[in-house]
Amino acid sequence: RVEHLFKEIFKSALDVQEKEQRKALLVSRKKKAEDTVVEVNGERIGDGKPTFIFGPCAVESYDQVEIVAKAIKEKGQKLIRGGAYKPRTSPYDFQGLGLEGLKILKKAAEEQGLAVVTEIVTPGHLEEALDYLDVIQVGARNMQNFELLKAVGSTNKPVLLKRGMAATIDEFINAAEYIIANGNDQIILCERGIRTYEKATRNTLDISAVPILKQETHLPVFVDVTHSTGRRDLLLPTAKAAIAIGADGVMAEVHPDPAVALSDAQQQMDLGQFDEFYDSLMKFMKQYEMNR
Amino acid sequence: RVEHLFKEIFKSALDVQEKEQRKALLVSRKKKAEDTVVEVNGERIGDGKPTFIFGPCAVESYDQVEIVAKAIKEKGQKLIRGGAYKPRTSPYDFQGLGLEGLKILKKAAEEQGLAVVTEIVTPGHLEEALDYLDVIQVGARNMQNFELLKAVGSTNKPVLLKRGMAATIDEFINAAEYIIANGNDQIILCERGIRTYEKATRNTLDISAVPILKQETHLPVFVDVTHSTGRRDLLLPTAKAAIAIGADGVMAEVHPDPAVALSDAQQQMDLGQFDEFYDSLMKFMKQYEMNR
Amino acid sequence: RVEHLFKEIFKSALDVQEKEQRKALLVSRKKKAEDTVVEVNGERIGDGKPTFIFGPCAVESYDQVEIVAKAIKEKGQKLIRGGAYKPRTSPYDFQGLGLEGLKILKKAAEEQGLAVVTEIVTPGHLEEALDYLDVIQVGARNMQNFELLKAVGSTNKPVLLKRGMAATIDEFINAAEYIIANGNDQIILCERGIRTYEKATRNTLDISAVPILKQETHLPVFVDVTHSTGRRDLLLPTAKAAIAIGADGVMAEVHPDPAVALSDAQQQMDLGQFDEFYDSLMKFMKQYEMNR
Amino acid sequence: RVEHLFKEIFKSALDVQEKEQRKALLVSRKKKAEDTVVEVNGERIGDGKPTFIFGPCAVESYDQVEIVAKAIKEKGQKLIRGGAYKPRTSPYDFQGLGLEGLKILKKAAEEQGLAVVTEIVTPGHLEEALDYLDVIQVGARNMQNFELLKAVGSTNKPVLLKRGMAATIDEFINAAEYIIANGNDQIILCERGIRTYEKATRNTLDISAVPILKQETHLPVFVDVTHSTGRRDLLLPTAKAAIAIGADGVMAEVHPDPAVALSDAQQQMDLGQFDEFYDSLMKFMKQYEMNR
Repeated sequence: RVEHLFKEIFKSALDVQEKEQRKALLVSRKKKAEDTVVEVNGERIGDGKPTFIFGPCAVESYDQVEIVAKAIKEKGQKLIRGGAYKPRTSPYDFQGLGLEGLKILKKAAEEQGLAVVTEIVTPGHLEEALDYLDVIQVGARNMQNFELLKAVGSTNKPVLLKRGMAATIDEFINAAEYIIANGNDQIILCERGIRTYEKATRNTLDISAVPILKQETHLPVFVDVTHSTGRRDLLLPTAKAAIAIGADGVMAEVHPDPAVALSDAQQQMDLGQFDEFYDSLMKFMKQYEMNR
Repeated sequence: RVEHLFKEIFKSALDVQEKEQRKALLVSRKKKAEDTVVEVNGERIGDGKPTFIFGPCAVESYDQVEIVAKAIKEKGQKLIRGGAYKPRTSPYDFQGLGLEGLKILKKAAEEQGLAVVTEIVTPGHLEEALDYLDVIQVGARNMQNFELLKAVGSTNKPVLLKRGMAATIDEFINAAEYIIANGNDQIILCERGIRTYEKATRNTLDISAVPILKQETHLPVFVDVTHSTGRRDLLLPTAKAAIAIGADGVMAEVHPDPAVALSDAQQQMDLGQFDEFYDSLMKFMKQYEMNR
Repeated sequence: RVEHLFKEIFKSALDVQEKEQRKALLVSRKKKAEDTVVEVNGERIGDGKPTFIFGPCAVESYDQVEIVAKAIKEKGQKLIRGGAYKPRTSPYDFQGLGLEGLKILKKAAEEQGLAVVTEIVTPGHLEEALDYLDVIQVGARNMQNFELLKAVGSTNKPVLLKRGMAATIDEFINAAEYIIANGNDQIILCERGIRTYEKATRNTLDISAVPILKQETHLPVFVDVTHSTGRRDLLLPTAKAAIAIGADGVMAEVHPDPAVALSDAQQQMDLGQFDEFYDSLMKFMKQYEMNR
Repeated sequence: RVEHLFKEIFKSALDVQEKEQRKALLVSRKKKAEDTVVEVNGERIGDGKPTFIFGPCAVESYDQVEIVAKAIKEKGQKLIRGGAYKPRTSPYDFQGLGLEGLKILKKAAEEQGLAVVTEIVTPGHLEEALDYLDVIQVGARNMQNFELLKAVGSTNKPVLLKRGMAATIDEFINAAEYIIANGNDQIILCERGIRTYEKATRNTLDISAVPILKQETHLPVFVDVTHSTGRRDLLLPTAKAAIAIGADGVMAEVHPDPAVALSDAQQQMDLGQFDEFYDSLMKFMKQYEMNR
């Protein structure tokens, strides 16, 4: 009885301690109560209305990107994603077009008035790439590439930071802290599924991470429905869930012809599927937003 | 090149094979295209409109259950949950009131016109309990207690089958098949979180399991927001996500005084929280349903 | 600084608390410092010298069991395992021969002077089975089938308790406590791999669980190399690791013709492989034992 | 029946395919049947006799390193580890002494005739560090930092590559392939535990990964007992298991005064514990080696 009481007291004390420590982080709500809004190309990410990032997994050619960019523009969206430096499991898989790919992406994006979101995988690429991107993506495999975090933290470009494959929420928040501690507070967190025993989906979308991250930090939180599920048939339902639970935006991959894509062929939407996805989501959101 | 082509062919063939096999299951959409609707106390679970199961973790006393039953009735809900036979990690934890607890639950429920959902943990308890329950719950720890599955499959009571702590979706579907193969097709599947490395929540809610289960089977799918998150502050956001993604219902725990609850003290809602949870969810749903 | 110190103090206090509580368990070293030795058919399991349990996954016929029983006897071993009541993922898989299978197993075992280890999956089977078995196995899926634990705890037969598929060590210890709390202290714990994201093996053998269980409890600890790895080529190396780390014994499956086995065809050894496995392990142990 | 047969055929075909592909890797046994031996400072890592890497988690001062270096030399060992560039979860944790730390480590090592094993976390550090190290460690967080893998693959220094926190064995092998594909075949693989739900240990040592990696590749395989267990009391038993299962070596952390260590205070051995660990392991190995 008494022992149990003591234990409870200790536990509470420990919890208080840990919460205190977390409050001290620059990314924490305690340090800054109001939501951080990241402004990119006129989009105000994190201001309460969900925003979107669409685009192909990898940049393959000007034509490929242009088709997708036009589809995005038609929908009134402002951002396009595309990989130029591709982190791939095997050294013999397509490694991306590098700087050339990024220039292609930038050109196609500018012609449609879109801003570019692209992944940087090592500090050494940052300088050459900086002129051709608007948002720096740090991918799941690099969430604890601390030198990269410091490097992007020293730029004045917004950063989209993806959660590591098996990162705890606490590690995720601390990774963002590396960026803000180096002077850059324009950070978008992105839940993209975690690695679990379940293989029906590519990863397991940890949907509860969204409200936890919104509580603990003042940063906008996105959900990448493509990499979390790895299944085209789950993109729309998980996007609805993401918005319903309070995500600030959704990221999804679109490719003119997924079957011949050089990466992620199984999970990108084609243009028709993209239209359908977008329309259904807008319809869902129209209802939902009234009440948010 | 050619090798790769062969591999793709094999892969497709294998996938087709596995899908065929799955189609053969009695619980599969292929065997029965239309949704199964489980009718309990006038509620039609699975007919498109979300339903709810609320109630305390464990039955502790008549007064305790009565208070919750009244709150449920006031909201126009028709079902109450409560544990009489409690599976507990330690033999020295409160093990539930057993049949006496079940009789208390039934009495309090009947007085408010509610149907009883309660867990049965072993075939030997089934006979004595059958008169005092309306829906048999098979808990996560017993999802592969096959003799129990066969036993509940031989009754004519609806069964709420929870996903095992680390069960794959495929194992979950096969567990349901044990029930239907014994003659009982009144089955409600319930996602309740899976065990992963992430400890910010009690379990990790596998929200994508909901649309997968809806695709693969014709059974209604619930989400237990209490056990998946283990956190009171996440009940409302995850309930919204569950409904947005297409769940047929939500289960959550309510206790008149959670702080003194004999189990799950950290995660049950008190009556005020219950009101707030319910009102917010109804408001969310009102918008949402128009468009479903 | 001071805050950190406080945190450390709290943490230590909490740890002390939890250790105290664990000490209170009947299975804990604190309650009983000396090793429990479970005696079966002249084998003293847990007395320092590793022992072995071999046999087919499932009993299929008298001939099948007899062949294996003879091979076990030839090696001077005293125990045979075999499943009569089989817990299977699908209701359409071979479910075991039930009591008839158990009678076959007992007969073949007795003729070779072996004791029978067999799984019981529900309390209702216990009475009919008790005369035909020497060690009751509680399988991974039933580690938290508490009514079964209570039932086997009320018998006077030794119990081999397998760790659940995704059970923590703490839950495993508490499951054993259910048995001892009901009066039966003849318990053998069995690590059999846990479910993780890694699929190169059927499960991930948690080898460190062995020394932890030996520290925390006074019970003998086995390692099931068949179910943890699911790969014939890993049986010998993992058996060596198990013995080197201090396991009290090893369990492995042997079948006269694995290719036609009605379950676990991929992972059982045939008789030739069994000979080779056993000889190599004895050679390894001969060296090892001198120094243990 | 027939369907099942087809399925089996397809499955086998797929397996054959995948094995073929794996054979094609430069790190695979198929490409090179004989074991790769990595020679460092007279130690032949991978030639059948286990070798060892000891040293502090982080370099803190010359005195600290010198004490450990002397203890290592006394035991006749040839390698010392120590972190100068430290990847830490929080930006406010001790980040290592950087190049200065590395110079300290090199000086203390040279004076005792030891070779230096140290982690490099980003390609940009490689040039300045190359003169002060003998083996480049790539840590778990950087296993898929592909630009770093390419960079270390372009040096002529041996590389100790740690398995990622939640990397599959297949991803681990492919990470090594990045190094060898860039021209460097002096690679030591290091299993260091994987992230699972079990929290009794810091990570779960995946001991079966050792024989799998030995089968699939021709590279030496180490086990880091410190990071896999995170518990001083498990270092010796897991080291024995590692050697028994066929590991080419063991890595463990030693600190003159772990209680005041700037990182990993809970898991480093002090000098007395180091002596005891080493003596017990040598005694174990003396027996074991006779028969290997």
